[in-house]
Formats: sequence, structure tokens, C-alpha cells
Amino acid sequence: MSNEKVLVFGHKNPDTDTICSALVYADLKSKLGMNVEPVRLGEINEETAFALNFFQAEKPRLVENVSNEVEQVALVDHNEFQQSVSDIESVKIIEVIDHHRIANFQTKEPLNFRVEPVGCTTTILHKMYRENNVEITKQMAGLMVSAIISDSLLFKSPTCTDEDVEAAKSLAEIAEINLDEYGLDMLKAGTKLENRSAKQ
Amino acid sequence: MSNEKVLVFGHKNPDTDTICSALVYADLKSKLGMNVEPVRLGEINEETAFALNFFQAEKPRLVENVSNEVEQVALVDHNEFQQSVSDIESVKIIEVIDHHRIANFQTKEPLNFRVEPVGCTTTILHKMYRENNVEITKQMAGLMVSAIISDSLLFKSPTCTDEDVEAAKSLAEIAEINLDEYGLDMLKAGTKLENRSAKQ
Ligand SMILES: [Mn+2]
Ligand SMILES: [Mn+2]
Ligand SMILES: [Mn+2]
Ligand SMILES: [Mn+2]
Repeated sequence: MSNEKVLVFGHKNPDTDTICSALVYADLKSKLGMNVEPVRLGEINEETAFALNFFQAEKPRLVENVSNEVEQVALVDHNEFQQSVSDIESVKIIEVIDHHRIANFQTKEPLNFRVEPVGCTTTILHKMYRENNVEITKQMAGLMVSAIISDSLLFKSPTCTDEDVEAAKSLAEIAEINLDEYGLDMLKAGTKLENRSAKQ
Repeated sequence: MSNEKVLVFGHKNPDTDTICSALVYADLKSKLGMNVEPVRLGEINEETAFALNFFQAEKPRLVENVSNEVEQVALVDHNEFQQSVSDIESVKIIEVIDHHRIANFQTKEPLNFRVEPVGCTTTILHKMYRENNVEITKQMAGLMVSAIISDSLLFKSPTCTDEDVEAAKSLAEIAEINLDEYGLDMLKAGTKLENRSAKQ
């Protein structure tokens, strides 16, 4: 695997899945030997701040462009170029992990592109830890389960699948949290300072 | 899993990978409970006919349209709509397995979309048998190794990866063939009646 640096990020107006997926992807891929740094394209919301604080995780570095510092990027929790960094077409996308419809995306070369119709990106990342036999730390489990709670509104969203529920239960054990208790606290933190709009 | 019928097919002007991937995908998914039929969008070439004949496989049924008979389809060995069936935008694409760049593709809803930067679609299908613990028959192994030989020109193409070589070796054992001997015979069969053009 190349040691050339890769930046990984989710969509603009980041939600909890976008931020946690960038952090978790960076953890997994670093452990697999990739030189990867998680970054973000906008401010952290209150819900995400609650999750990062609870699991003592640093927020990713804020960037406005990426082509000024790297040639290669990975996308999580989005694939449409208009939701991505403004100079996305100036870099090589080496991997996409997402759970949305596919549109407004194209590359010149083949890449790793994995989209599954589940409720949350971290549900796919959770599977990737298992596929690669990489141990999941308490912190990473906490970030993954937070993203699933957020995207599924504690399993009440119609986009939530059995796979999301199973992943969340397994991750809650590793993270040593009570799903309902932690989940309601986190969702409440997100309603303090902002209106919840349609989730991406 | 729904019992609603799914048609699976590769690109127009089918090559060996497109035809074999449709047959192999149908075998794997049938064994996983899906109601799936492999079809093709054009005539079989001489190389593909050699492989089908050698492993006693029926060619898929020829179709011109799909929306007249099904609501759901799966694509193998392509993702660009202009390489696909003419009425592709009238059906729901539930899965894509491919190894090409992504372009001119979009859906309204999330789906299973798996593209990996390997030399052949059946290299990915081979991995999927393993992931799902489904046994690979001699016939299916023969079709998969034929596709890898075809797309990689017996491992000489620059798009050929270590993963393709490993898959081909393992499949050749199950198929009980000598890779070089069978491979040259198959490639020669393809040069009899047509000029080899750039592979898709
Ligand atoms: Mn998401
Ligand atoms: Mn999101
Ligand atoms: Mn191919
Ligand atoms: Mn092809």
C-alpha cells in the first residue's frame, strides 16, 4: 500500500455519521497501513459534539480545499460531488463508503466504491473491521454506534435496517453504553441549539 | 429476500467477462435465495462460445428490453447507462458488481454498488462466494477463470492485479484445467473470426 497521504471526509454541513465515519475510516485504514487523515468540511453540530466529548475523540481538522495538500482522497457518507469539497474534481478519489443513492459522481479510473442500502455509513465500516479482522476499540465503537443512533433516530427512521440494529447492539456492548439512555441523551443534545432538518 | 424476479446482465457487445459474470452472479444469488435469471444484450463472441462449450454452460437468453418483463435488475461488468440495456432508466437497479470507472450512472434510491479496481468482474464474484460461504462448482469455477483469462489476456494486461492472478489460480484448480493450455486455446478461439478490439 502506498504511503502517499490520503484525506478522508464526509459531506458539507456535517452530521454525526459524516464526522464519525471519517474518524473511524481513518482508524481502520491506519491500522491497515494507509497514511490517512480525517478532515471535515464544516462546523460540528451539538449532537456530534456530545458524541465526540462522551468518547473523548478529537474533532477532525477543518479544511476548505484538499487539492492544495493531497492528490488522493476517500469519501464517506456521500458520493454526490455537489455535497463534497469544492475542488473534488481536482483530486483522485480512491475509495467511497456510503449508504445514499448514487448520482453526480464520476471518475476517470476504477476505484473502490462500496455503497450498501443500510441506514448508516458506520454500519458498513463496522462490517469492514470484521472483514479485515481489526479489533474495534471502545472509542471507535462509541463513534460508530453514535452515528447509527443519529442517522436512524434511535432506530425509528424508515431507512433503518436490521443490519443497523444488529451493528448498534454489538457496538453498544463494546462501547459500554446503554443504547436507549445514551441515545436519548445524544439526540437531546442535538435539539438544543438547532432545528433537526432532514438527515443526509 | 423478495421472490420478485431480477434479471442480471452485462454490457452491450458482450465479452467473456460480461457473459460469465451474468451466469455466475445468477448461480450465486440463486443459491442465496434470489429469483434471478441471467440474460444478455447481444451475440456471443467466439471466445465466449469456446468457454461456454468447454464447461457445458448454456448461453443466457437474449433480450432487447427488460422493463417489459421485470421491475428489478442487477448489472455486472458495467455501470454506464449508455453501455446498458436501452430501457435501463425504466427499472430499479438493485445491485451493481463491476471493475470499471464510474460514470453516467445514477439511481433514485440506495442500492448495493460494489466496484473494485481489479482486472475482472469475476474476481469480485469469486470473493463473494467466499464471503457467503457458498461452494463453487467446477462449472462456475471454469466460467470465472475464463473471464479472468479474457480480461487479463492471460495476465498480460496492465489492468491485471495480484488478486486476479490469485483468484485465477484457485479457480483453475477447481475447474481442473491447466491455466496456460486452456487459456491459450480460449484466446485463440477468439481470434478466429473477429479482430480483438480494446476490452471493456
Ligand atoms: Mn449517513
Ligand atoms: Mn450524513
Ligand atoms: Mn470485465
Ligand atoms: Mn467487459
